[in-house]
Amino acid sequence: MKLQNDLILRAARGEKTERTPVWLMRQAGRILPEYREVRSKLGGFKELVESPEFACEVTIQPVDILGVDAAIIFSDILVIPEAMGLPYQMVESKGPWFENTIKSQSDVEKLRIAEGADLHYVLDAIKLTKKELNGRVPLIGFAGAPWTIFSYMIEAKGSKTFSVAKKMLYTNPALSHSLLEKITASTINYLKAQIEAGADMLQIFDSWAGILSPEQYREFSLKYIAQICDAINGVPLTVFAKGAFFAREEMSKLNCNVIGLDWNMDIAESRALIGNEMTLQGNMDPCLLYSDFKTIKSETEKMLRAFGPQKHIANLGHGLYPDIEKDKVRCFVDTVKEFRF
Amino acid sequence: MKLQNDLILRAARGEKTERTPVWLMRQAGRILPEYREVRSKLGGFKELVESPEFACEVTIQPVDILGVDAAIIFSDILVIPEAMGLPYQMVESKGPWFENTIKSQSDVEKLRIAEGADLHYVLDAIKLTKKELNGRVPLIGFAGAPWTIFSYMIEAKGSKTFSVAKKMLYTNPALSHSLLEKITASTINYLKAQIEAGADMLQIFDSWAGILSPEQYREFSLKYIAQICDAINGVPLTVFAKGAFFAREEMSKLNCNVIGLDWNMDIAESRALIGNEMTLQGNMDPCLLYSDFKTIKSETEKMLRAFGPQKHIANLGHGLYPDIEKDKVRCFVDTVKEFRF
Repeated sequence: MKLQNDLILRAARGEKTERTPVWLMRQAGRILPEYREVRSKLGGFKELVESPEFACEVTIQPVDILGVDAAIIFSDILVIPEAMGLPYQMVESKGPWFENTIKSQSDVEKLRIAEGADLHYVLDAIKLTKKELNGRVPLIGFAGAPWTIFSYMIEAKGSKTFSVAKKMLYTNPALSHSLLEKITASTINYLKAQIEAGADMLQIFDSWAGILSPEQYREFSLKYIAQICDAINGVPLTVFAKGAFFAREEMSKLNCNVIGLDWNMDIAESRALIGNEMTLQGNMDPCLLYSDFKTIKSETEKMLRAFGPQKHIANLGHGLYPDIEKDKVRCFVDTVKEFRF
Repeated sequence: MKLQNDLILRAARGEKTERTPVWLMRQAGRILPEYREVRSKLGGFKELVESPEFACEVTIQPVDILGVDAAIIFSDILVIPEAMGLPYQMVESKGPWFENTIKSQSDVEKLRIAEGADLHYVLDAIKLTKKELNGRVPLIGFAGAPWTIFSYMIEAKGSKTFSVAKKMLYTNPALSHSLLEKITASTINYLKAQIEAGADMLQIFDSWAGILSPEQYREFSLKYIAQICDAINGVPLTVFAKGAFFAREEMSKLNCNVIGLDWNMDIAESRALIGNEMTLQGNMDPCLLYSDFKTIKSETEKMLRAFGPQKHIANLGHGLYPDIEKDKVRCFVDTVKEFRF
């Protein structure tokens, strides 16, 4: 089916666009009353992720309500460890939690390499959403970067320091690499299945990139992201490594189309480090959306001018915070859509 | 009294040293059984901070046990908001908590500018420690950077995003600046009183530097750090802004002696950005100390070579984590002390 709005795909491929495309990380979620209503019917986050009909519904909500140029499938990066044999729970107002974690090489051996079919509920949600979107905007699929998935599988939950996961890198690099390899193989299978199900574009989220030293990042994260990039063909691919300011130059060598920037990263400096080949995505501070409308508009325009008219996908530098007002998000989206260089 | 070991002061001033001096952030604390024993007698962290005799005892412990080249007074950055009229609690295994926070301009008006005398217990601890150290090593005093103190006074507690504090910057910059000014004035008074009490060197900790955009960091943090640097004379001053990779070049213009680096920051790149005038401190990943002794030794030597023989104070890139074994810390310290270029 021909897309009526393919701005984001063209921008990702470095093709000329009439204006900058825009979407927001966590656009489908708690900021929308319509989302909260669906979720309250279902009882929990995981039920929503695992129900294709409802996942489809909340995936499309921001396209209708916010007017963004892409939908991103409503899911979670932690579906991968679960498909590998390590189930997670999502604890209300606390976040993810793994009852079992990986402690030994035999724990790694027990894990299976996930196949697309293990994640049929995500694939069904993608198929259904593609049908329901009916070509209005592209649909983005995604997965966590192997290091970020690894850190949850070792640490059991979110952490300020991820010192348990990092301890594993230092004390047992062999186990660490064998687990990262299994996660990488699973992720490649999963992303390929997402393309087959209809995803028009993919994004890899390395949420905990910023807690590794440059050297460890190279060895335990970037290496596996590169393997995924090399294995994925046919749709544009974005890599967003939050906090990996130190790896920007190396990331320009990845076999992907778009590099996501967080709001700590200076736009001109990032462009200089990454070069002119790739498209950049980002990078407004999510807290800007607490401001008044006038400030949101002027700061968003400043960001657009800093990125320039081409090879840019407007977004935040991180996911939307749940207490942001919907109209403030719309203001950000509308400012991008109305802006002309 | 003449210092028997003034390596760290000479290194800070850019003078030639026979070897690299070494100390560790959070060296006085839970990693030492001797500390845990003192603390269990007293019941809580705050009781320890407020008791000069016990604060002195735990301040000196790492000099005896670890052989570091400096002591740092055992205290907390949150003594400043308390002295300004906003008391804090230290909740076991949760961290700091403020029952009252700053919500309005009238809340700011009610705060007083702290004087040295408001923090007599810290000053008494410094005096006593200087006497007990008897010139063995220099004593470091410290304070939080105004932005980091501000963030706790608004947010009430630690946070991954500090979105409440950042919201205040966006929604009420006038209030934010008036609060930051009061914190800055209090901090200058406090640091001057620490020098008068005998502190040989000072460090400013900007623990939450890394959550601000470069532009906001300039406006709401660096500006006030610069005011403190300009007001302090007579002892070397270190500024450690965790996560402020984007501000390294600007920080080279601060009127201070030493810039602390975290472990995300490449050493050669940081030296190039900061220039050759200033001394650098850091920057080992705290998690290295989970490794075996051989790895700790080789990685520490690699770090020393990267910094070079002069204008470097060896340290971690963040505070010690509480579950690190004492002998691993000793291995880091001994490696620095035994290394010869």
